[in-house]
Amino acid sequence: MRKVVLGLGISLDGYIARLDGSVDFLFMPKDYSMGPFFKTVDTAILGRKTYEDSLKMGGGFGAWKMKFYVLSRSMPPGERDAVTFIKESPSAIVSAIRKEPGKNIWLMGGGELARDFLKEDLVDELQMGVVPTLLGEGIPLFPSGFPQREFDLLENKSYSQGLIALRYERARKKNKKAH
Amino acid sequence: MRKVVLGLGISLDGYIARLDGSVDFLFMPKDYSMGPFFKTVDTAILGRKTYEDSLKMGGGFGAWKMKFYVLSRSMPPGERDAVTFIKESPSAIVSAIRKEPGKNIWLMGGGELARDFLKEDLVDELQMGVVPTLLGEGIPLFPSGFPQREFDLLENKSYSQGLIALRYERARKKNKKAH
Repeated sequence: MRKVVLGLGISLDGYIARLDGSVDFLFMPKDYSMGPFFKTVDTAILGRKTYEDSLKMGGGFGAWKMKFYVLSRSMPPGERDAVTFIKESPSAIVSAIRKEPGKNIWLMGGGELARDFLKEDLVDELQMGVVPTLLGEGIPLFPSGFPQREFDLLENKSYSQGLIALRYERARKKNKKAH
Repeated sequence: MRKVVLGLGISLDGYIARLDGSVDFLFMPKDYSMGPFFKTVDTAILGRKTYEDSLKMGGGFGAWKMKFYVLSRSMPPGERDAVTFIKESPSAIVSAIRKEPGKNIWLMGGGELARDFLKEDLVDELQMGVVPTLLGEGIPLFPSGFPQREFDLLENKSYSQGLIALRYERARKKNKKAH
């Protein structure tokens, strides 16, 4: 089944962006590549704020070999500017995408979208690149307001400049850990 | 110089405790030991709430080979029940402790205390044991409200049951990273 992968770069205190949406604190070390990750996904879901912040930062969506869905209650639904605007609930969207064959689904954030997906227990995998900076304030990857969710660690690697890359898989059958 | 080490177990979403102060989600894998850490510290600083939560959880302070300072504006200063209550600012306390020879100083939290120490740039090292659980709500290790602080990664190790142990050192001279 096509997995939903929440994948983002974050600060050490868990922020995906500064309060103004900028991500200048993130960096890509020479020995790290997002290539292997991009090979596993062909569809991305993002929130309206992340979409607008991406446009502001000069990000175009047309150049990507990726199908983009922007979740928004305020924007009229439909396809335009290389993205598809949708109003449906996270579970409806994921079900619809899963009806077509394809690769994994990249949940690009932002924080409120991640929370909505975690509420409906739709996140199958987490992939985080953590930079060694405490921002002190920003937009959190995991804003509070969803039930406890257990994960299994799949991968933990250190890269140059202090970046660590973590990969976790949702452990839906795990109720209580042996201590 | 005696370093101030902020050292705590946290959830994957950065909480040191549930909202009621309980830490049942933390665990200690068989292949992990806090022994090496405890050899490097002989003094601990904690906030009043963390102190009271520790007492509620059945934690006694008398059994430890550690000098405990509890920062509190409301409690009368002085030594009792194996801890010393103090009212001074974080920088005054750290200066006073550093006048005596000894090992490193363990900043046990909680979150508001960590923020006060980060505001005054007193945290020299971070040591975090991260469990593979998203709590969804709780008391954050790094509540917002302090200036950006850069760190260098010293150590990143994975243990059984998905615990990862991270050690970072404050990089005070690092202004901007080469990207």
